[in-house]
Formats: sequence, structure tokens, C-alpha cells
Amino acid sequence: MKHNGNIIEDLKIAYIGGGSRGWAWSLMGDLALSGDLSGEVMLYDVDFEAAKKNERIGNSLNSSFSYKAAETLREALSGADFTIISITPGTLDDMASDVHAPEKYGIYQSVGDTTGPGGLFRALRAVPMFEAFALAIKEYCPGSWVINYTNPMSLCVRTLYKVFPGIKAFGCCHEVFKTQETLARLAAERFGTDAIPRREVKMTVTGLNHFTWVTEASWKGRDLMPLYREYCRSVMSSPPKPIIRDESFSVFACQDRVKADLFLRYNAAAAAGDRHLAEFCPGRWYLESPEAAEGWGFTLTPVSWRRSDMKARLEKSEAYLSGRSRFEIRASGEEGVEQMRALLGLGDLITNVNLPNVGQVPNLPLGAVVETNALFASGKLSPVFSGAVASNILPLIAPVSARQELTVEACLRRDLGLAFSAFVADPLMTVSLKDAEKLFDEMRSNISPYLREYK
Amino acid sequence: MKHNGNIIEDLKIAYIGGGSRGWAWSLMGDLALSGDLSGEVMLYDVDFEAAKKNERIGNSLNSSFSYKAAETLREALSGADFTIISITPGTLDDMASDVHAPEKYGIYQSVGDTTGPGGLFRALRAVPMFEAFALAIKEYCPGSWVINYTNPMSLCVRTLYKVFPGIKAFGCCHEVFKTQETLARLAAERFGTDAIPRREVKMTVTGLNHFTWVTEASWKGRDLMPLYREYCRSVMSSPPKPIIRDESFSVFACQDRVKADLFLRYNAAAAAGDRHLAEFCPGRWYLESPEAAEGWGFTLTPVSWRRSDMKARLEKSEAYLSGRSRFEIRASGEEGVEQMRALLGLGDLITNVNLPNVGQVPNLPLGAVVETNALFASGKLSPVFSGAVASNILPLIAPVSARQELTVEACLRRDLGLAFSAFVADPLMTVSLKDAEKLFDEMRSNISPYLREYK
Amino acid sequence: MKHNGNIIEDLKIAYIGGGSRGWAWSLMGDLALSGDLSGEVMLYDVDFEAAKKNERIGNSLNSSFSYKAAETLREALSGADFTIISITPGTLDDMASDVHAPEKYGIYQSVGDTTGPGGLFRALRAVPMFEAFALAIKEYCPGSWVINYTNPMSLCVRTLYKVFPGIKAFGCCHEVFKTQETLARLAAERFGTDAIPRREVKMTVTGLNHFTWVTEASWKGRDLMPLYREYCRSVMSSPPKPIIRDESFSVFACQDRVKADLFLRYNAAAAAGDRHLAEFCPGRWYLESPEAAEGWGFTLTPVSWRRSDMKARLEKSEAYLSGRSRFEIRASGEEGVEQMRALLGLGDLITNVNLPNVGQVPNLPLGAVVETNALFASGKLSPVFSGAVASNILPLIAPVSARQELTVEACLRRDLGLAFSAFVADPLMTVSLKDAEKLFDEMRSNISPYLREYK
Amino acid sequence: MKHNGNIIEDLKIAYIGGGSRGWAWSLMGDLALSGDLSGEVMLYDVDFEAAKKNERIGNSLNSSFSYKAAETLREALSGADFTIISITPGTLDDMASDVHAPEKYGIYQSVGDTTGPGGLFRALRAVPMFEAFALAIKEYCPGSWVINYTNPMSLCVRTLYKVFPGIKAFGCCHEVFKTQETLARLAAERFGTDAIPRREVKMTVTGLNHFTWVTEASWKGRDLMPLYREYCRSVMSSPPKPIIRDESFSVFACQDRVKADLFLRYNAAAAAGDRHLAEFCPGRWYLESPEAAEGWGFTLTPVSWRRSDMKARLEKSEAYLSGRSRFEIRASGEEGVEQMRALLGLGDLITNVNLPNVGQVPNLPLGAVVETNALFASGKLSPVFSGAVASNILPLIAPVSARQELTVEACLRRDLGLAFSAFVADPLMTVSLKDAEKLFDEMRSNISPYLREYK
Repeated sequence: MKHNGNIIEDLKIAYIGGGSRGWAWSLMGDLALSGDLSGEVMLYDVDFEAAKKNERIGNSLNSSFSYKAAETLREALSGADFTIISITPGTLDDMASDVHAPEKYGIYQSVGDTTGPGGLFRALRAVPMFEAFALAIKEYCPGSWVINYTNPMSLCVRTLYKVFPGIKAFGCCHEVFKTQETLARLAAERFGTDAIPRREVKMTVTGLNHFTWVTEASWKGRDLMPLYREYCRSVMSSPPKPIIRDESFSVFACQDRVKADLFLRYNAAAAAGDRHLAEFCPGRWYLESPEAAEGWGFTLTPVSWRRSDMKARLEKSEAYLSGRSRFEIRASGEEGVEQMRALLGLGDLITNVNLPNVGQVPNLPLGAVVETNALFASGKLSPVFSGAVASNILPLIAPVSARQELTVEACLRRDLGLAFSAFVADPLMTVSLKDAEKLFDEMRSNISPYLREYK
Repeated sequence: MKHNGNIIEDLKIAYIGGGSRGWAWSLMGDLALSGDLSGEVMLYDVDFEAAKKNERIGNSLNSSFSYKAAETLREALSGADFTIISITPGTLDDMASDVHAPEKYGIYQSVGDTTGPGGLFRALRAVPMFEAFALAIKEYCPGSWVINYTNPMSLCVRTLYKVFPGIKAFGCCHEVFKTQETLARLAAERFGTDAIPRREVKMTVTGLNHFTWVTEASWKGRDLMPLYREYCRSVMSSPPKPIIRDESFSVFACQDRVKADLFLRYNAAAAAGDRHLAEFCPGRWYLESPEAAEGWGFTLTPVSWRRSDMKARLEKSEAYLSGRSRFEIRASGEEGVEQMRALLGLGDLITNVNLPNVGQVPNLPLGAVVETNALFASGKLSPVFSGAVASNILPLIAPVSARQELTVEACLRRDLGLAFSAFVADPLMTVSLKDAEKLFDEMRSNISPYLREYK
Repeated sequence: MKHNGNIIEDLKIAYIGGGSRGWAWSLMGDLALSGDLSGEVMLYDVDFEAAKKNERIGNSLNSSFSYKAAETLREALSGADFTIISITPGTLDDMASDVHAPEKYGIYQSVGDTTGPGGLFRALRAVPMFEAFALAIKEYCPGSWVINYTNPMSLCVRTLYKVFPGIKAFGCCHEVFKTQETLARLAAERFGTDAIPRREVKMTVTGLNHFTWVTEASWKGRDLMPLYREYCRSVMSSPPKPIIRDESFSVFACQDRVKADLFLRYNAAAAAGDRHLAEFCPGRWYLESPEAAEGWGFTLTPVSWRRSDMKARLEKSEAYLSGRSRFEIRASGEEGVEQMRALLGLGDLITNVNLPNVGQVPNLPLGAVVETNALFASGKLSPVFSGAVASNILPLIAPVSARQELTVEACLRRDLGLAFSAFVADPLMTVSLKDAEKLFDEMRSNISPYLREYK
Repeated sequence: MKHNGNIIEDLKIAYIGGGSRGWAWSLMGDLALSGDLSGEVMLYDVDFEAAKKNERIGNSLNSSFSYKAAETLREALSGADFTIISITPGTLDDMASDVHAPEKYGIYQSVGDTTGPGGLFRALRAVPMFEAFALAIKEYCPGSWVINYTNPMSLCVRTLYKVFPGIKAFGCCHEVFKTQETLARLAAERFGTDAIPRREVKMTVTGLNHFTWVTEASWKGRDLMPLYREYCRSVMSSPPKPIIRDESFSVFACQDRVKADLFLRYNAAAAAGDRHLAEFCPGRWYLESPEAAEGWGFTLTPVSWRRSDMKARLEKSEAYLSGRSRFEIRASGEEGVEQMRALLGLGDLITNVNLPNVGQVPNLPLGAVVETNALFASGKLSPVFSGAVASNILPLIAPVSARQELTVEACLRRDLGLAFSAFVADPLMTVSLKDAEKLFDEMRSNISPYLREYK
């Protein structure tokens, strides 16, 4: 990396999971649009062919960045200024076990990659991978900034820090932005202005990834919480819209009913998609059954959908490669490149990220990964003090942190006994101890190739 | 109070709940056996007649203490060196609501006075009473030592400290002693000695009242945890004994199966009766149904039993008063009088008590009431550092503390909304939000006379 | 206050100490230059005439703000959106005692308003005044933002929070800006650019007011600490310039030799004027004698200078009022108005301010007022996590915090015994206990009218 | 080690510094008097001949313990149940530098082994030795209890824990016992009883070794602090007794004037010998000169005295070995053997020891070694919560902790720059920076053979 006036050249970015047909393409677009950065992106993937294909796609763009598939982590990481980690820990078959195996016990998960039995088993696979990444980063690029997009977010970031405490890592997630956009829309309506960019809405963010809470929000000094309260009331004043699986249907859609219900109960805005929020609550609240979920205006995301989505992405990839289709450069809405720019000194940025708790959330455990605002400024990332989790919400959040800490310990020690303790304490586990043991065994057996080191 | 050589005279003890037909009699016996104390016990009770009767019973004993029923808290407390609080917050009808109202929703409680929906509603009644006690103690005897025996223990003690931070209060519970006795018995068997007094077993105690954990135990330098592990294995190696409701039946009996199951899962000894422990675990574990509980070797304690027990106690009281029966002075096994002696400087005592956390359990919230060993020594009660709750147990305990803090706040603010947040987050609440709301309303309505200040 | 598009109208600013001939005029200029704010400034001063004169001066400017002298705190504060406190706690005679009384004991102070014997006695006068301000703010404008400029800064801000914990106060000081400017200059020289605005230099700021440390600094991603090290080495490589008291002489001037010496010893940049830094160090380091100070390139600030400076200011005031001289509107370099704008939602601001420690400096006591960066953003002021004070600096800073906490307690309890404990523990107090007692008595006697409530 | 009824046999005790002619003999006597322990003591010393001689002396006693000089740490430690460390880190020539080199700069130390310039240089020698001990203990007897008697106490114990966090070490010092004895004597006088054993006086102990504070004291429920206040007043009401260096003179004697002065200033009893207390206070308080010290009723302890004392001890050793003199078995007054017995389960013990802070002193840094009461009970040593250091004392104690932490870091990193930062921040260092540097260089040069690894 070198400075040339206000331009930064020869930037080296390592991308772990660089064969991805989603985040990798977003990054390509955002980098192509960044006027003041140039350099090289090393694409590393366990599927080297996929990385190779992305190398070709990336290099076909009109961009100041070149792309190169790396055969080893060492090659990818050596000299990296930034390291991006965006992997799928396991196959869609593995994920089918995570998401669907519990269903025969009446345990439904709307996503299954963050918490609940699915999140736990995904962690059993992911944490050892992140352990290896952390060791490789320590060896090959200890000063690199590391941006993680992989779920389970908190557990992956926590692993990086436990294995290499000197790492400069953080985790990014766009879920909170949607609440920020809602607030921006409400403000624009109320104050009769043009569309307000979401960044103009200032929020106090606290909690854990996918179970994040906005406790204060304002726009140019105007308190937006009363508007949000009105919005939540209006959401709940009409019945849920029926789910119609026509061409406009999206598995990610929600009607904000979980958010509205939580806001009206807890007086703070849970800021993630309803599908994610539901999974952190006791199993009988929003996920008693697929029908119950639909009654709350959202649907479960079956792995079959992910399979067909993946198929579409692969086709898109082939279309790009064959020239049948043209990669359109556009802003992804993700913040990764802006965060890089801020860390490089090209303008301050304040946004919510996942970092170990050094006191920014004083009533969650020190060291646990929390999601709050942080200041990105010229070589430094500093959490912003976000205040204690409110006493009425703490009974829901404190155990999540405790389970996450236990889960990472279980994974790093390769200890299935500890993992079961985390598994069975999850509020989605509305079953008997006996059934919990059966389900655990079954899920363990489904992904046994990953668990050889576990005892 | 005055010293006369090694004798302490003119001690003044206030007893709130002094009409009791249980604890009050235990105290009378223990005081009569204490050779080096003398003085007066003021009996205060909302049922003044009951206090009057106990006055007569107390004064009929061969004791260096005299007894006097007090008509007001002021009269009882003024000048007290010690204040004992042992009340029933509400009637057995109220308790019937606490314990049995949830059953129609499939929520079973084995005791119903500590946690779960019953514990919460008992707290809604008890906390305002304890608020009044704390204010009266602050006014009339701020330097008095205050010993609480009332459940919900943690919430009552927490209230005393929140309302009067300078109070010198602690909460006592004998549940842990039973595990200590089991350990003493196992040690005597293994090491071929005579019966070992439970006090000789040294334990590290940590956690919350009725969900207390023994993490280390030894006798004369010999580690007892391996013996306890063997014991738990042997308990689980045979099927539960069938419950037979003959004359030998006791509602308090248990077969240590919950304790054994927890020990084998968590590698630490949960030290309270199985009936209590079961209530802190997710509802499907040990309390799915009355039959399931019996499968774990214990029974639910119906309020009907308490009614007939109370009838027997009242008859016993009348028999004492009429001379038909003679009050037999004997050691109760409770530690109250020994604690008083130690605080008066007549010998150190180390035992487990409930106190606000000043760091004795470093990973539970400061201020929350925890149960650990403490040193009683001549005018001073000091918690002994007990170590962090183990990471595998923390997901079960952390939310209990969070709910208890929330519950006390809800009660002191008379806020039923906050109370509902605590109610619905309880792991015994295996029902939908809608059913939780219905149950809450019903239980609220059942005890509405106590809740007039609540909104 | 009301929003009118991007303009904020009817802002109400209360100014305690509004008769000032320094800060008040700076504010007038900065407000006149702020394009998007308008409203009224209420000037309160114990010297009502002085406030009256400033009212006339303020209203003579071409500004969207009007000025009004208030006869009571109540009148000034009622409805205030912002409250500025910039007072002199006592007269210049009082300050002469603070600064010069210790000299006959060989104790020299270069400023005497922050720490050392002078800072302590200034606090004995100021804290009760700030206690009154806090109570008035709680009563008349509890939601007002409160900006303090008065020294002793940490003690004044700490008092506001101790007396009214809900206050929204912070303390501002420009001392750190000078180090930021030095860094900007060094960066411009090294990187061959035009002058760099100090704000572009990003710093990690930690410590206590006037004893603040910059532990990291960068400009557009370039680490500036090596440049600063070179600078410090070059400062120390040449002998101090002799102090010549000609017309170019300034009592505030320094040659950065104390800063350079501290940097080279501690590997972190002490960021305040040398005059301030010297006072926090043991008395024999930089302040053994006036000559020793000059050997370090700075001079003591005698109160005689303040008297003649005040005379000049009074003349300037009269000149403004009579029209003999024209008030020139220009930016003061202070940040108060920018901070207001950020709090009103008109653009984020990150700068160093004095706030109670909620963990932004994890190894200083919680609650103690520390100086770190904070984020000002639309209705919210949030400290930025700044990291622990380095272990080699902590022996110098930890006792300052401890003495400050003790001093505020001594003042709020009006307890001269506690005040003496703080006094005698100061590292400038290089005298015997007997002499310390004599000096304390003498200084106490000098300002006795302020100490009537003290015992 | 094995249990045989209530007797513990085959105990293995390692003694590092086992050639000592003081503590080692105390231990021999105490072990000979212990009725229920038997086993072997391994004597390790860098002076193997000295250990050999003690082997002969030990084996000549009528004792259930045998003694054996060990040639290596490995031999001494392997299989040890207890490890005692009581060494002199360096020679008396080294100590002459520690104590006397500073005198030419007007810096006087009454002991010079704990704090001040002498304590620091002693630490520079001792910490690397303790680093080696900790590593050896980790290797050869990781489960051993480790009792340290070596000064600088806090720094030696801190080193053991930093190097081997799992160590079971504590530090013992008898200084506090003397204040306990004074309190016992005052109580016996006031309450007209026979001599009261010091153990019956219950105290709250808090602070740092040799700068320990008793904040509460009682005997059988009677508050003794008022008696101590009277005592201190009476001490100060008469002039100091002149120091006469006749045969009754002891270098350790003091008139409690420093203790009395501190008590009357701080309202808490500093509990160590006046010689130790004086060294923690600013240099001008009690140690301005040897004459000033005598005016406070105590004398400096010159190394010349230590030389002649050592000579007498060596003669005593020879007399024992030749049979000219008989080793008299008697209780030493030290608590080591009682602590062992308690840890072995033969009776609880509560006494003050030095341990890393886990919260027993909540306003000193976690991890720093503090001195408070702790409970010794059957395999477990648990600190007793002792309360925060009072706000008026904290400015004296907080910097001691900060310097101690820095000193251990400096020693473990072999960094003389950091060591100088600790050195120059000591309140005994009443000199200029230039003189501090000269003194540091001189002391460094005096003990340079120990500092080869330092940079």
C-alpha cells in the first residue's frame, strides 16, 4: 500500500471465500466505484475453481483493482492490508440438517444460521475454520484489518479474537440498516422533506448481532422514537397480510410485526429482520409452527430455496464468464469499502459493527462480541459507548451472550458435552431432555465429517 | 444489649412474622439452648392474636429470653439488635393461585414460591411489604442485623438493600445443608469413620438461592467431589422408586435424581432440594407434568397439603397453650442463633448466606443477591470470594439474575408491564405469548387486592 | 427551539459567567458566524453590570442572536437549550493566594488553577458554586446541554454530575488542539502538502484535563507518532531559548520542552501546554524554582499579569461600548458552537471532551471525569473508547484521579480535613507535614469568606 | 502425603532459601511442635553448604520431620505438597547499595526492601529469580501450595502469578499482628480481662503489604476503634522518647508515632511497623533525615546492623552444629504451619495474606497483589471481601499499586526504561530528574551482575 496524494495505491485485499457468487460480486462493484483506491484482490476459496472464475469476472471489469485466485491461505494473506472473510461453513446439505432436522421435534427456525440448534451446529463447523484463519492471519498478515461477513457472526468474530487477541477484526451486518431506512422514511414523511439518506438518522445501537436494539434515534435533532412507536402501533392495528407465494414473494420479506410486537413490549426497537429476531425468543412466541410464523407475517427460509437460489447464481456466474450477460457495476449498499476508506484515513465513518465488548455495553460480559456503533478513523476503530441493555430486555439477551461464550469454548476445546449444554439451554429448545439428546445426536451424526476432532 | 463477661444480656430481637407456627418455634428452642445470650424477643405479626399466642408459648419455656407481642412495627423494631423476618406474603388462597393457576396451561411448579409464575406473583405481594420493612428498619433500628427467611429469598433481600442501602441484612436458607450432609455421609462411609458433622465438610458455594451450586467440597483435605460423582452415577443407575402416598410419604422427599442428573451434565453439584432445582430449568426438563416429576422421583407440593399442614400446626399451637402438649426444647438445625452469636463476637462462623454481590461471584451482576459462603465475625459479615459461575452453568443462571433484577424493579416501580417481561421470560413459561398474557391477567386478578398501587 | 428546514430558530442559550470579557466575546463571534442558528443568549453574572455591558455589546453585532442580561439564575436558565458555564471562582486576590502563597515554601505553580495547592483551594471555592448551578439546572432546565469551560475542569464537571446525575454536561478545553496543530504542521512538512487543518489529524486521546495524553495520531492513514518523536528529539537536542521579556513575550508561550521530555520518557504525547503539564509532575521535575521553569522554556504566570490583562480587557469593553473600538466578528477557534450544532443534528463531530468515565478509560475509576474523544451526534454525546492509560504513565495519573475524587467529596461535605488529605498528597507538595499544615492554614485564612460552611 | 486418621504423614515441604538462619529455624521449631503432621523438608539454597548445615540442625531435633538439602530446584520441588520461599535476593553488599546509595541525595529509607529506590532495585534482582521459581513450580509441583516470605512481598507474589497463573501461592507477613496485639492489649485493659490472644481480635484488613490498613476492629462484639483512637491520641500527647543506643536498643523498635499520626489523619489504622509505613509516604513526611525519623521515634536500619546480625546468626549456626548450643524448640509466632494445617483440612483459619486482587479490595486494580483476610479451609484459600480503600487513603495507595504493576512489568520485560518510570514516580524521590537519573545509574551499576538481561 502506498499513498499518492489522496489516492491509495497498491492496496492488497485478501478475500477468504473468494469463490462466492454474492458478497464477492458486491465487493467487485463497490471497489470499481471507489475513486481513490487501487490494488489487488486475492481470492482464496476451498473451491479453487470458483475463485478462478471470480478472478476472471473481476478482471473483466473496468476497475482499478485486479483479481487473482490464490491457491493457499498463505499466498492470499501475505502482505494483505485488508482481509475479508465471507464463507459458507459447510454445504447446503449440512445446512439442511441445521435448519430442518429439528423440525420433527416441533422446533422451527426461520434462518438457522445464527442461534438455535442450527446456529450451534453451524458454529461447530465454523469455529475450527475461523481458528485456522486466525492462526494464518497471525502468521501472514498480523496487522491486516479483518472484516467478517460470515454467520454465526458473533461466534466467528469471538473466535478470531480468542485465537489471536491482537487481531484487528470486526464483523459487519446490514440488518440494522433496514430499521434505519424505516426511520428515515418515517422522518421524511413526518417532516415533509425529500427522501432522507439513512445515514442522516443517528441511532444508539446496542446488543448482539441479529438481536440488536436501537434505543435512541433522531434526525437533525428531532427524536424519531415517537414516530417509530406510531409506526409499530399502526403495524399491529391491522391483521397480518396473507402470505402469497406468487412471483413477488420473497423469503426475506417481513411485515415488521415481530419488530412492532417487540417494540411495544420492550420500548426499544429490535433492529434486524423479523426472521432473525424470532429465533432469539422463546420457541412458542413467533416460531411455534410455520403457520404461526406466517401469522406474524414472515416465512421460514427452507434450504430448498437456497438450493435453487444457488443454482441461479451459478448460472449467472457462467453467463458473466461466457459474456452472455454483463456484470453491472453498482453500489451494493454494503459498507465494507467505505469502512476501508475510513480506516485508510479518507474520511471518518460511524456505523454499527461487531466487536469484543470493552465496556461499550456495560452489562454484557467483557470480551463477548457485541454490536454497537464504532468510529472508523484513520488507522483506528474505536467502539462508541452505547449504554447498558435495558433491564426488561436483559433477561432475553444475557443468556444469549452466555450461550455464545460457552459455544465458542466448546468448539475451541472440541467438547461436545459443553456444546450440548449450550444447545439445550436455547429458548427454541422446547423439548424434553431426552428429545434434546436424540436431536443433538442426529444433528451431530449428520455433519460428522466436520466433528472428528470433537469428543 | 450489654456484655457481662462472656455473657451477652438484654439482647433485643425483633421478629417480623412472629405469629408463625414454624420458624418462630424453632427460634424459641434455639434461643433456650443458647447458654450465653439473654434478652427479649418482640413478636410482630399482621395477625396480632397469633403473636400473642406465641408470646404465651415463648414465656412458658425455661429460657433466658422473654417474649412480647408488639402491636406496631415501631414497637417491635425500636432498639432491636437483631431483626428476623419470616413472613408469608399473602394467604394460602393467594398461594393456590401462584401454584395452581398456571397448571391449566401445562405449567407445573413443584413449590411455586421462588421463581416461575408463582414466584413472580409472590414477589408482587412481598416486595412492597419488604419495602415497608426496610423503611421501618431505617427509621427505628438502622444498625440492627436483619435476617430474612422469607421466600422469594433473593428478591426480598434485594428489596431491603435497594430501599435502605445501609441495611445490614442477609438471607438464610437451609437447602444447601442437605447436600453438605450427603457429602458428610459419603465421606464417613468411604473413610470408615464415625458420622461426620456436616460442618466439617468444606464447600465452595456459588449461585443463587435455591439454585445454588457446590463446585468444590472436601473433608480434612480429602476431595469429596469424586465421591459425589460416584453417588450421582449410582442414583441414576437404578430406576426411580415409585412414589407411594402412604403414611411415610413426605411432600418434601426427593430421590436426588434431579441433583444427580444436573451433576452429571454440569460437573457441579446443584445444592437445593430437587423440587426447587427443577423450577429453574426449562419447563420440559423435570416439570412437564406431575407424572414426569414423579419419574424424576419427586412430587409437586399442592397447596391443599399446606392447608392441612397449617391446620395441624394450629392444633399444635392450641395444645401448647392449653397445656395438652408440651413444647420440647431442641436444636432446630437452623443457624440463626449461631449467626447471631458469631456477629456478637462469640466465635467465628463460616456458612452460606444470601447477600448482594460485591464480587464474590464475579460473573453475576454487582448488587444482585447471590448465595455464597460468608464470614460472620464479631460485628462484621464479609462475603468470601467464591469464583465465577462455570461457563456451562452460566446460561442457566445469568437469566435468573436478570429476571430477578427486573422483578424487583417492576415491584418497586409498581409496574405490571415490567413484571410481565420478567414473567414471560421465565423458562417454565412454555406457552404462547397469548396464553402468557391470559395467565398473567388471571393471576393478577386473583390477587388484585395486593396490586392496587400497580399500574 | 424550533426547526425550520435546516435552520434552528429560537434557540435559548444561558451563559453563567456572562459578564466575562473573554469567552463571552468568543461565543458572540462564533454565534454570529453560524449561519443556521438563531435565538437568544441569557447572560447571568454575579456582576450584573458586567452582564449588562455584554448585553449591549452582543446586541450591537450583526448576528441572528439577541442578548439579554438576566438578574437571576432562574431567569437565565428557564427553558435553556444550552447552558454555558464560564466563571472565575473568586477574585484575582483569591487567585493570588492560590498561586503565590505556596511560593514561600518553595512550591511554585505555573498556572495554579487546576491541581496543586492552588487548584485545591480554587476547588474549595468553585465546587459549592457548581453544586448550586447543578441544583438550579435540575430545577429550571434539566434537559439542557451544559458546557463547562471553568477550571478546575475535572472537579467542576464531576460536581455537576455528583449533584445532578441526570445532567447532560461536558467540559471543553482547547489545550489538546495545540498538539494536534503541531502534528498537522509536522505532517504537512513531511508529506509536502498545503497546511493541514488540525481536524484532519486523528488522535487517540486519554487521561485527565490538562494532563491528557495522545497515544496514537495519524493523518490519512499515515502514522504521525514517528514524526512527533523526531520533533521531540530535535526540541531536546538544542538548549532552551532564553526567555526575553520584551514586547513579543507571552506568559502562555512554551518551547515544548516539557512535552518533549515527557514524550521521550513515556512514549506518549502529553497534550496540554507545558505550564499545565509541569504542575502534575513531582515538584522537583519542572517547577523547582522559577529559574528551573525557565530552563525548561516556560515561565510562571503571575497574578500580576492577570491583573494587567484584566485591566486591558475592561478597557476593551469600554471601547466597544463607547464605539471607540469595533467588535470584530471572527472564529474563535473554540468548538462550543460546533458542538451545539452537532448536538442539534447539524453534522457529526468527534472531539475531545471531559466526561465521567463510563469505561472509555478502563483503568481509571468509573465516574471520575476523564478527557477522551466523544461523538456528538444529533441529541447524543457518546464517549469513544480510548484504551487504558499505559502502565508507565499510570503511576502519574492514578493518584491525580484519586485526589480529584477526594477533593470533590471534601468540598461537597465541606470537610477541610479531607481537603487537607488531598492537599498534602499532591506531588507539588515537597514540604514537611508541619509546613503543609501551615500553608494550608494560611491559604484557608486568605479565602475564609468562601469557607464558612466548611468545618 | 497421606492421611492416617487425623494425622497427615509423608508430607513433603520444599524450602527455597533453605540455608536461611532465621525463617528456616522458625519453621523447624513450628513443625516439631505440630502434633499431627509428619514428613520431609527439602532444603534448597544457592548456598548448598548452608542448606547442608540446616539439614544437620533439622535432623538433630526431636521432630516428626526429617530434613534433606537438595542440590537442584528440581530435586527440592518434585512432589512437594508445600513450597516455602524465603530468600535474600542478593548479598548484603547489594542491600547496602539499595539502602544507602540514595542517602547522598537526601533520600533516606528505614528498611529499603519493599518500596522506594531500594525496593525497586531489590525487585530488579528478585523478580527474575521468582520468574525462575514459578517456572520450576509449574514444571515440578504445579499443585503445591506456595508460601512466600520474601520481600518485596507484593512484587514477588505478583511475579509468581504472572508467570504461572495457575499457581496456588500466597504471601505471609507478620507486620499486621503487632497492631492486632496492641488492640488485644487495649481491650484487655479496658474490659479488665486477662491477656487476650491476638486472634480474638477481629479486624478488617485492606491495602498492600507493609502499607496495610485496619479499618474495623472488635473483640467479642466490642468495637475497638475508639480505644485505638484514644491510644493514638495518648501517643501523640507526649513527646517522642529519645533514642538511646544502649544494649536495650533495637533497630526494629518504634514508638507507634507514625501509626498514631496516620490514624489521626486518616481515621484508619496503618498496620505495619513505623519503619515500613514511613517509606510509603512522601519523603518529607517521616524520612526527611535520620534525625527527623528519630523525632518520629524510630531509626533507620543500616546494613551494617544486618552484617553484624548475620555474623551472630552464623555463629549460632556453628554453635548448634558443634553442640555448643542447643536448638530450643518453641513456637515462632509465625503462622506458616497453621496455614498448612488449615489447608490440609485440620481446622479453619482466617488471617491476613497477600493475594492477587479478585475484588476483595474493589478500588485497587484486579490482579495486583493486595493484603486482606482470607479463609484457609481444607484445600482452598479464599479471599474475604474487605471493602474499598477509603477515599482519603486512596491517593496514597493507588500510586503504590500502579508502580508495583509497572515494576513487575519492567522486570519481566527486563526493561530499565520502565523501571526508571517506576523509580522516579516514588514519593521518596524528592530529587530532580537529573539527580534521579544519576542515582538510578549508580544503583544500576552497583548491582550490574544481576542486570545483564536488562536493556
